[in-house]
Amino acid sequence: MATIHTLQEIQKALSGVNLTPYIEQGFIAYSNNEVIVPPVGELIFDDPPGDTHIKYGYIKGDEIYVIKIASGFYNNPELGLSSSSGLMLVFSQKTGILQNILLDDGHLTNIRTAIAGQIAAKHLAPETINTIGVLGTGIQARMQVEYLKSVTPCREVVVWGRTPERVEEYKYDLETKGFNVAQADSPAQVASSVNLIITTTPSSTPLLFAADIQPGTHITAMGSDTDKKQELDSSILARADIVIGDSISQCRERGEISKALAAGVIEEKHIIELGNYISNTPPFKRDNKTISVVDLTGVAVQDIQIAAAVCEKLMQMNREPRSKVS
Amino acid sequence: MATIHTLQEIQKALSGVNLTPYIEQGFIAYSNNEVIVPPVGELIFDDPPGDTHIKYGYIKGDEIYVIKIASGFYNNPELGLSSSSGLMLVFSQKTGILQNILLDDGHLTNIRTAIAGQIAAKHLAPETINTIGVLGTGIQARMQVEYLKSVTPCREVVVWGRTPERVEEYKYDLETKGFNVAQADSPAQVASSVNLIITTTPSSTPLLFAADIQPGTHITAMGSDTDKKQELDSSILARADIVIGDSISQCRERGEISKALAAGVIEEKHIIELGNYISNTPPFKRDNKTISVVDLTGVAVQDIQIAAAVCEKLMQMNREPRSKVS
Repeated sequence: MATIHTLQEIQKALSGVNLTPYIEQGFIAYSNNEVIVPPVGELIFDDPPGDTHIKYGYIKGDEIYVIKIASGFYNNPELGLSSSSGLMLVFSQKTGILQNILLDDGHLTNIRTAIAGQIAAKHLAPETINTIGVLGTGIQARMQVEYLKSVTPCREVVVWGRTPERVEEYKYDLETKGFNVAQADSPAQVASSVNLIITTTPSSTPLLFAADIQPGTHITAMGSDTDKKQELDSSILARADIVIGDSISQCRERGEISKALAAGVIEEKHIIELGNYISNTPPFKRDNKTISVVDLTGVAVQDIQIAAAVCEKLMQMNREPRSKVS
Repeated sequence: MATIHTLQEIQKALSGVNLTPYIEQGFIAYSNNEVIVPPVGELIFDDPPGDTHIKYGYIKGDEIYVIKIASGFYNNPELGLSSSSGLMLVFSQKTGILQNILLDDGHLTNIRTAIAGQIAAKHLAPETINTIGVLGTGIQARMQVEYLKSVTPCREVVVWGRTPERVEEYKYDLETKGFNVAQADSPAQVASSVNLIITTTPSSTPLLFAADIQPGTHITAMGSDTDKKQELDSSILARADIVIGDSISQCRERGEISKALAAGVIEEKHIIELGNYISNTPPFKRDNKTISVVDLTGVAVQDIQIAAAVCEKLMQMNREPRSKVS
């Protein structure tokens, strides 16, 4: 019978697992057309307002397939509940039988998203990062920075957010985690003093423009995941030396790249898919004037791979001899 | 936290619940446009061959929404496993939070399908059923007949199937359940001696033709659920006095009605949706010459309603005081 795993068990399983190679291999498999990812399923609710998304797919020849269900119900905080919830179901690709139910409540999605940013920085960021600039003060604004710890020794952060209280909380949280956090009055002020920018807001109008960006800057844009949201003015993508998307087909429809394509300032043939970029040798070389943009819209292969990693570890933990009761 | 329920618990919960009103109300809500059912999600596997379908939706204003996952892996019997497996997930429509995991392995789908046939017969079949004709010898060929027990005192069955051993097994099984089963050499021979026909095969070519059908016969066609399968020649639908589909929009694309529409022998405006038929007063009156056809393609609202019924009963069982240990 399928085993059910609580968030606590999942967190225990995650400790000590290096997830980055899983997600990298996922992006590579995706760019090699080895991943089947049908269109996202969606349910929209009016009263109370909410939405549920079903993402699912598999890597050809793999052991498993994964169905992820994630919900956002925006009045939940009034009831003392988190607005987001969700789970992942892991099935055998050989028999179709359900193997694991991961009641992760969206935690694995947060991690796989943070790791995609880490991978973008690992492969694209300037060799020496002087300061990390962050737009936004939410979960990803925190996690993206934490997950950079293994990529750079830089612990200097400049943050901008719309709500002063949230910025204060953000500063406090990140400082307890070993970062020095300065506050900026505007997105442009963030960009003026950093060479790595992470954008993590739900903005639907551009926050940064080409003139704001310093030469030598890398930008990971992960806030925009729909056709409505936009954080970077298309002039930035037009000016960038290299533009990478996590999924070209998805970036055609949503995220920063879709806006720049629609504006006619970039051409699809110049966009590189993240998995192709990672696996390509020799890699793109940046100099101190290079501007790079990675647009992350979120691909189901990230879910497949993080679920695979967790299930492997859970199986391994299960095989380990239990401590004897003497 | 979500509760997980095994097939055994689900079967226990089902005992004593009259599911028919739930499914009837589901069809009525569906025909009243009160049900949200997005397109079915699908994953296809080549090696080993298999497929997984995700059906999901909700009744507006209801307490729950349901996601059903059903798999067919056709080499499983070689491994000693059932080819079909599956589960239903029940979430709160107020918070999005997962409430129940029903590990029913497709059992609830079998039941809701059988009940749809029962409802079709209850509302459409001749007042006196002399003999029940069955094409096919699978699970539904058994369950559809068993579920007629509450609709008619008739216990006479004539069956046709392609494989003699399967027909023998079928005859044995049904006779242990109180039916007298005669075997027919052809579909036409079945039709010649009955006034209620249930077709439950995966045939992709017509098995019955207009000339085979006796006046006064009702046909419930539930084998064809894709655009490839067909059990009834379109001449039957052309000749029928009343043609009903479980979902007009779905019947446009799949099942018997889609074939007859494509052949141009019936018009969509003459097809009645099952939920509308059930709720309409005064009902259609049949005489001893009337031929009726109900085409069942399977609608997610059946899954929603059977899951709702099971969860209500599970909650009720949970509230009942447990017997004290003295």
